[in-house]
Amino acid sequence: MKKIALILSGSGYLDGSEITEAVSSLICLSQAGAQFQCFAPRLTVASVDHRTQSAGMPRDVLTESARIARGEVLPLSELNEAQFDGLLLPGGFGAAKNLCSWAEKGAGCEVLPDVEKIITEFYKNQKPIAAICIAPAVVARVLGKHGINVTIGNDPQTAQEIAKTGAIHEDCPVSDYVSDRDHRILTTPAYMYEAKPHEVFAGISKMIREFVELA
Amino acid sequence: MKKIALILSGSGYLDGSEITEAVSSLICLSQAGAQFQCFAPRLTVASVDHRTQSAGMPRDVLTESARIARGEVLPLSELNEAQFDGLLLPGGFGAAKNLCSWAEKGAGCEVLPDVEKIITEFYKNQKPIAAICIAPAVVARVLGKHGINVTIGNDPQTAQEIAKTGAIHEDCPVSDYVSDRDHRILTTPAYMYEAKPHEVFAGISKMIREFVELA
Repeated sequence: MKKIALILSGSGYLDGSEITEAVSSLICLSQAGAQFQCFAPRLTVASVDHRTQSAGMPRDVLTESARIARGEVLPLSELNEAQFDGLLLPGGFGAAKNLCSWAEKGAGCEVLPDVEKIITEFYKNQKPIAAICIAPAVVARVLGKHGINVTIGNDPQTAQEIAKTGAIHEDCPVSDYVSDRDHRILTTPAYMYEAKPHEVFAGISKMIREFVELA
Repeated sequence: MKKIALILSGSGYLDGSEITEAVSSLICLSQAGAQFQCFAPRLTVASVDHRTQSAGMPRDVLTESARIARGEVLPLSELNEAQFDGLLLPGGFGAAKNLCSWAEKGAGCEVLPDVEKIITEFYKNQKPIAAICIAPAVVARVLGKHGINVTIGNDPQTAQEIAKTGAIHEDCPVSDYVSDRDHRILTTPAYMYEAKPHEVFAGISKMIREFVELA
């Protein structure tokens, strides 16, 4: 049975993992017969009220991620690449704000050392990496120098920023995905579009079918 | 196009809506071509840390529900039954703690006046009501006197408590649902079992197909 590690970044698209993307990932991994384990960094960040978009009290990324994972989440520092066959990063602003500083600095951003190490290890050992929505930007920041192909949909500004990392951006509709078979990188745009939940699910579902095969 | 109202009760199974159940509902409604609008009560409740299960700071049910709904949530007091074709209640302890006091008092519990009024109106106007996990207990508390059939899986204690409302409990596996066509009540057990995400999704998916047809 294939074992997949997921990196969550909180719970809620404005300050954490996009919930529909994360849940769709878990459903599709489960449908494909894969085992999974969620991880998240121990990190206190500003929260955002998802109704009013105003700033809220600080929250812990690991603790909030546990809501999506029904408690089954481990600190990112405990992710041992040797125990897994593939790595999956759902999107949401948390991926661009909590796992790295892409939201603020774009292609020149810093990446959490654990995140950078883990992505690099999975890549080196030729294990597939899947990323959703804005999370491909984190992967591009770490692996762009290898000329990987990724998609974040069709937003020209973000695509341009991704190109600065050395990665090659391909436009892609919400219900599809881009597969870079040479580098074993799979990406799908999800809520980079103003999409409906079933469209996001369709793109993630197709991507995860190939991802689990490769794992 | 069918219009469905959902009642959320927070975000996270220990103090709100079960996230996988709520997201599966949105995906399946969207797959079935239905429109939907989420509602939640304005209510401050004790939160639960989903990693340690210890008590946390108070949180607002409406505000937290906005995380699942990507901001698109309205106060429950604004739910006008006349504008919708069906009502859907995802589960999670929030349904049994925030929408009513079932978690504490069982069959003799109080129900939020708005919740009781809305369930009664949909029932009176022969619009279908779907409920997931423990949420059928809320529906049973309000409509049990009409002898409705529901399921919460196969937990004998909860089933016995439901029988006290006048409702008839039917055992049901996680990937299936119970349809009471006379009363237009549809229920599926989801995380009343120690289930996998794709099993929960399967039960909700089958239920919502019939639910949207009836709506």
